[in-house]
Amino acid sequence: MKLKVYADRMSQPSRAILIFCKVNGIEFEEVQMNLAKRQQLSPEFKKINPMGQVPAIADGKFNLFESHAILVYLACAFPGIADHWYPADLFRRAKINSVLDWHHSNLRRGAAAYVLNTVLAPVLGIPASPQAAVEAERLLSASLSKIESIWLKGNGKFLLGGFQPSIADLSLVCEIMQLELLDENDRSRILDPHKKVLQWIENTKNATRPHFEEVHQILYRAKTRFQEQRSMGANNTNSSKRLSLPSKM
Amino acid sequence: MKLKVYADRMSQPSRAILIFCKVNGIEFEEVQMNLAKRQQLSPEFKKINPMGQVPAIADGKFNLFESHAILVYLACAFPGIADHWYPADLFRRAKINSVLDWHHSNLRRGAAAYVLNTVLAPVLGIPASPQAAVEAERLLSASLSKIESIWLKGNGKFLLGGFQPSIADLSLVCEIMQLELLDENDRSRILDPHKKVLQWIENTKNATRPHFEEVHQILYRAKTRFQEQRSMGANNTNSSKRLSLPSKM
Repeated sequence: MKLKVYADRMSQPSRAILIFCKVNGIEFEEVQMNLAKRQQLSPEFKKINPMGQVPAIADGKFNLFESHAILVYLACAFPGIADHWYPADLFRRAKINSVLDWHHSNLRRGAAAYVLNTVLAPVLGIPASPQAAVEAERLLSASLSKIESIWLKGNGKFLLGGFQPSIADLSLVCEIMQLELLDENDRSRILDPHKKVLQWIENTKNATRPHFEEVHQILYRAKTRFQEQRSMGANNTNSSKRLSLPSKM
Repeated sequence: MKLKVYADRMSQPSRAILIFCKVNGIEFEEVQMNLAKRQQLSPEFKKINPMGQVPAIADGKFNLFESHAILVYLACAFPGIADHWYPADLFRRAKINSVLDWHHSNLRRGAAAYVLNTVLAPVLGIPASPQAAVEAERLLSASLSKIESIWLKGNGKFLLGGFQPSIADLSLVCEIMQLELLDENDRSRILDPHKKVLQWIENTKNATRPHFEEVHQILYRAKTRFQEQRSMGANNTNSSKRLSLPSKM
């Protein structure tokens, strides 16, 4: 039975799994889940992931959730995955695990909360908290600074001084890509001070082309739609400034 | 060179590392860090962990931070660690990784934020947010329910139906132990509905005795001190209700 990947491409960890599979030639079926329609909460999907979150995989009868655990599993379980994605070397592997663990409470928490409390909350019909956005930006900016000063400090192209990407590069860069949805001024204010991060994003795109951009198309379309809606709102102060996701992104 | 473990026993992930080393007979030197004195921010320690957090380890010239990454490293790098802690089997290992990844944004986030915004903030001299405490309790209680219904649903004594503990049991139980610091009514309200969780905590204590209780002594002393201070505050409404950490716990 072919591997099934349950994913919504609007979700950053979903994109990381899809790109990893495509780049590494893993045969899989993408089961498209629509978070906006709350499909992840269906009883059918909860048999795959009782937490009701994407991404998740079903490899035959083996179900797994949490994107980092999935990336590690895929890198170890499928034949022919290049070693640089998740090195067999104990020390390099430990450093990658450390980056991935750090990600949860730092970059991910900051980026996801900032995007939620600025552009996504109105789309999802939930209240945005300006205070939460301020705190999230602080954590996000501090996280980007740490990535630069600790893991991108050498001459390598990727985290930890590597010249080829690991699953940590893919996971963290997909997280940062979510900032594409922001107002351009906000995105520039947050990202532009971090030149090494910007270069690292480009390096990761280049190392995973054309799949990286293909999987991110949905995000770019949402970005364009959001920009148009903001621009319409600015030109017509009587119109609702509430953004909406395209019906079919 | 002997393994060095930089730890403050008041920190739940520090305790998990120390207990793991002791239970498995790993020779190590405990380097005591005092978070209340901000020793983790010293330039000397930042050479070990540039993030300025405990726990961290130095194994010869190899430095590592993030407690889950450390537990995985120790289980793989040191000889004679029983397989149940971090099974070589790909599928069991993937499930443990999934629990550990989930932990970051759920149980840990809920438990740490609740303890911080109730008993610890006054001790640390920072403002407690009642709203944050309410949200944290919601996440914490939901996390405990999920642990019961998903990972403790079978007849096993540990997560995922095991009869011997893994690093996931140790990490998550040490997190829950932090609730010892709470007012007893709060702790009971949160934990008592989760009988399977309470039994699993006992199972983990029993499987790691006497080290579990020895490493938690500092927490029990802090708990007693907090209780005394609360009781004094209740008996004398003119006295300050601000709690303080014992000078030497």
